[in-house]
Amino acid sequence: MRPSVDFFFEFASTYSYVAAMRVGALGDAAGVQVRWRPFLLGPIFRAQGFDNSPFNLQPAKGRYMWRDLARICARHELPFRRPDPFPQPSLLAARVAHVGVDEGWGEAFCRAVFAAEFGEGRQIGEEAVVHALLAGLGVAPEPALARARSDAIKERLRSTTAEAERLGIFGAPSFVTADGELFWGHDRMAEALAWAVRPAGPRA
Amino acid sequence: MRPSVDFFFEFASTYSYVAAMRVGALGDAAGVQVRWRPFLLGPIFRAQGFDNSPFNLQPAKGRYMWRDLARICARHELPFRRPDPFPQPSLLAARVAHVGVDEGWGEAFCRAVFAAEFGEGRQIGEEAVVHALLAGLGVAPEPALARARSDAIKERLRSTTAEAERLGIFGAPSFVTADGELFWGHDRMAEALAWAVRPAGPRA
Repeated sequence: MRPSVDFFFEFASTYSYVAAMRVGALGDAAGVQVRWRPFLLGPIFRAQGFDNSPFNLQPAKGRYMWRDLARICARHELPFRRPDPFPQPSLLAARVAHVGVDEGWGEAFCRAVFAAEFGEGRQIGEEAVVHALLAGLGVAPEPALARARSDAIKERLRSTTAEAERLGIFGAPSFVTADGELFWGHDRMAEALAWAVRPAGPRA
Repeated sequence: MRPSVDFFFEFASTYSYVAAMRVGALGDAAGVQVRWRPFLLGPIFRAQGFDNSPFNLQPAKGRYMWRDLARICARHELPFRRPDPFPQPSLLAARVAHVGVDEGWGEAFCRAVFAAEFGEGRQIGEEAVVHALLAGLGVAPEPALARARSDAIKERLRSTTAEAERLGIFGAPSFVTADGELFWGHDRMAEALAWAVRPAGPRA
C-alpha cells in the first residue's frame, strides 16, 4: 500500500487552485496516494468570527495575495485570471465534487472547476457552468447534479468540513498525513508528501 | 554595487526568528546585500483592528504555527523554545537594534535577541536581558541603552514602521526588493533574494 495524504481544499481558495493543478504529478513522483477532500471554509471561518475571506477583510494582505498568486502561476505556467466576485460561491461545486469522488471522476472535475474559475474567470457558482464542465468531461450532467442535491451528498460535505475542523484545519489548502501531521498551504505541499514517505523513527 | 533586499522583521515574530538566523548566509550565497530593517507589527495590526497576534486570536492557527515552527527549526537545526508570554514585548529590542544598525553591530545584536528569545526562552522585554546581550557582543550597554531612549532613535523606529506600512507590509518577516516587489514570510525569503538578482526584462 502506498502511503496517503489527505488533500483538503476549498473551491473558492486561490492557493487551493495552484495546489490542485500540481498535486497529482507531485504525488505520483513522491509515490504518495493523494485523497481529494473537498470541504467548505465558510463554516470554519464563521466559527472563528469571520464573515468573509481574510483577503477581503485585510486589504493589504489581499493586495499582496493577488500579486503572490500571479507570480506563482507565472512560475508554474498556470493561467491566471482574477475571479469577480471573489470569493466565488463554492457550495454547488463542492457537492458535485463529492459525487465525482464517489464515482471516479472527482479529480478531473475538481481541476476543471479550478481552471474555469482561476484560469478563465468563469462563475463556478452558476449551475449552467458546472453543467458545461461535467459535459466537457463526458459525465452526464443531470444525474450528477441531481445526486449533488441529495441529502446523502449534502451530509458528506458537512461531515468532511466537520472532520477538517477536528483535524485542526483553519485554511485551505491543507494536507494531513496518515499519522495526523497537518500542513497548511500550497507552500507546504511538497513537505507534506515528503513527510508521508519518510522512514519511521524519531520525529521532530 | 550588489543588488539589495530590505529585510523587515519584528522581534516578537516567530518566523522572523528563522529568517534572521538564515538570511545572512543565503544573502551572501545569492550575492545580495541584505538591509536589516527592524520595525513594529503592533501599530500595523492595530490599524487593521487587531489587538493581539493572529496566532493568539485564532487558536487553531496558533496551534498549527507552533508545530510548523518546531518542524522548521528541526530542519534547519535551530534551537527552539516557545517564549512565555507570547508575543514578547519587542519595543526596547527594536530601538536598540536601530542603534546597532547605525553603529555597525546591528545584525549581531538582532541574531542575539532572536536566539535568546526563541532558542532559550528569555524575556527580551527586560532591560537586564538586553543589557547582558549587548555586553556579550562587546558593546558597551549603558551608552547603547541611553541612545535607544533618545528621540532620534524613537523616531527612526516610528518612521521605519510607517515606511513598512506604505510598502504594503502587513506581517513579518517581509522582504522588499529595490524595484518595490514585496515578499511575505520566511517561505518567500529565497524567492526574494532570487528576484533581486534576476536579469532585467519582462517580469511576471
